[in-house]
Amino acid sequence: MSETSRRVTPLAAVDFCVDLLSHAGLSGADAAVVAACLVRADLRSINTHGITRMQVYMERLSDGLINAKPNLKLTKLTLVVGHLDGDNGLGFLVATRAMDEAIKMADEFGIGMVAANHSNHYGVAAAYILQAAEAGFISFAFSNGPAAMPTWGGRAPLLDTSPFAAGAPLEEGAPFVLDFSPAITTRGAIRRAMRHGTPIAPGLALDAEGRPTTDPKAAFEGVVLPIGGPKGSGLAMLMDLMSGVFAGAGFAGSVGDLYGGERPQDVDHMFMAIKPGLFVTPDGFSERIEILARTVHELPRAEGFDEVLMPGERGARCEATYRCDGIPCADEDIAMLQETARTYGTAPLAILP
Amino acid sequence: MSETSRRVTPLAAVDFCVDLLSHAGLSGADAAVVAACLVRADLRSINTHGITRMQVYMERLSDGLINAKPNLKLTKLTLVVGHLDGDNGLGFLVATRAMDEAIKMADEFGIGMVAANHSNHYGVAAAYILQAAEAGFISFAFSNGPAAMPTWGGRAPLLDTSPFAAGAPLEEGAPFVLDFSPAITTRGAIRRAMRHGTPIAPGLALDAEGRPTTDPKAAFEGVVLPIGGPKGSGLAMLMDLMSGVFAGAGFAGSVGDLYGGERPQDVDHMFMAIKPGLFVTPDGFSERIEILARTVHELPRAEGFDEVLMPGERGARCEATYRCDGIPCADEDIAMLQETARTYGTAPLAILP
Repeated sequence: MSETSRRVTPLAAVDFCVDLLSHAGLSGADAAVVAACLVRADLRSINTHGITRMQVYMERLSDGLINAKPNLKLTKLTLVVGHLDGDNGLGFLVATRAMDEAIKMADEFGIGMVAANHSNHYGVAAAYILQAAEAGFISFAFSNGPAAMPTWGGRAPLLDTSPFAAGAPLEEGAPFVLDFSPAITTRGAIRRAMRHGTPIAPGLALDAEGRPTTDPKAAFEGVVLPIGGPKGSGLAMLMDLMSGVFAGAGFAGSVGDLYGGERPQDVDHMFMAIKPGLFVTPDGFSERIEILARTVHELPRAEGFDEVLMPGERGARCEATYRCDGIPCADEDIAMLQETARTYGTAPLAILP
Repeated sequence: MSETSRRVTPLAAVDFCVDLLSHAGLSGADAAVVAACLVRADLRSINTHGITRMQVYMERLSDGLINAKPNLKLTKLTLVVGHLDGDNGLGFLVATRAMDEAIKMADEFGIGMVAANHSNHYGVAAAYILQAAEAGFISFAFSNGPAAMPTWGGRAPLLDTSPFAAGAPLEEGAPFVLDFSPAITTRGAIRRAMRHGTPIAPGLALDAEGRPTTDPKAAFEGVVLPIGGPKGSGLAMLMDLMSGVFAGAGFAGSVGDLYGGERPQDVDHMFMAIKPGLFVTPDGFSERIEILARTVHELPRAEGFDEVLMPGERGARCEATYRCDGIPCADEDIAMLQETARTYGTAPLAILP
């Protein structure tokens, strides 16, 4: 891991992104939405999906592979089902709008479902789950992406490792946020083991010939495995089914790559929003989920654990800390971001002294 | 494993259950629904949830802990949201009716959601996913049950190991059926290791003090762990949230036990049905899911695999075989079933010669 002694305020990070995105032709409002999603990822310590991605988004916007001024078109198929054509806009814009429309339907009819196509990489799914939770709604997000993991029994990539995401509001405390990849490890973790020359645990990956391996180099040339074998594989397939097969765009490994691809990604998203107080009163739901959270917190702890947390609680704590103290930023990331700003002639990222 | 040389036709198994259930006071139509669900589990080789459960259902029906003549009451909360009061009926009846109502709503508005409460153990979730798939619908089923697994970081049971279930229809071939427990192993598998005196793999269980263990005896006194650590834990918590917190009955470990409990279980179920041809044409959906299935089948195989299958395909194959050849039935199970028939004075299970 690199030094992360330097810090950036959330506001400075937002300004940096908005400048670049405006330069690329986005409206001020759209640039603000995208910047908020990216900075939120950094605030929750998911910096792989934060502002460092600006470089590739800017490249694709400049090359016309992403549309800076998409004309998002909503078609209502029924009272509770909408389809949003993303017009090859940034995934953040398409996803935020789609979830917003799903929420409006759920507010009126209890549940709303919006599928978006012609979209792009949308960063962290948690951003949209938080959007719904902060508006007071339960939500689900399904997305797919480029092939990265085989189905159980295979050795070639077919499924994406896009996260399964869902969440619910809590009146007191952090929203319940589930946002996890169905893969048992990440290619980043394998790359790290390769750098350190340490073997990886058994059961995480196959080599290029489809044999189980603990050698990180062989694993890197092979594929990562799903959690729980056929279970995680089935979950990943369900996501491809919901966001690809069902929603009407790329699926079964046909989604384009964010990096290097010379064509639009054609990513789909699928969102569902659900009103919490349908079967109990809204207050009833709040009370009940608080009891669940309290029971989780009070659970006797396993060895090596100081506390038992709800999904999303760690991210919320991190966000609270970074909002006060600034977001830690690695030197090489700062260098890359400043280089991006120089390339497009926009203001450099302001670093805390 | 015990001898399973003797076989039973599906029809004989249905007749056996219908006789018992009619004796317990169920209507003929209701008895047929319950019997079909139970026998379907046996046909798909999930015999832990098949007709051998008749004994405990009969006991609970006789003791008045399950209502033989429930008055299922549907309340429509919106055009696409229904609530079904299960009136403490058998879970099979409540779940079948709830999914049916969700399908009707989905047929009209694209999506339908029905929560049921005051229900009981409903066997395999796959039965309702198949019900929806055979009617041509995508579906999700959430259920919770008695505490059996800790949340990640805990050592005491809080969450159920009830399956996460979802599915979709395929015009040709077996429906896509996902039906998996978020637990990484079963207590049955641990019990087996205990009997055989073999250690269990690391990462499957904690002992009673919350320490990782490979000793099956210590694991049996402790708890099983979720798949993927916090991932499976989050998924199990989502199911408790959707079927318990949201739907309005038992949650956070408060659901009663099927065995030994002296009160109604108060199980909740949550079903969603979705129309496949919303965003593409119905034919388009069929074609696309066939392509997904074909791509899966053609995937280069990992070591040790003869084929790569879609979720639900193995179960469908098993069902086709057992429908022809009869369902294998262990001697001790047959003995138990005949004992049950004797207890209530109903016809014994007909065994194939």
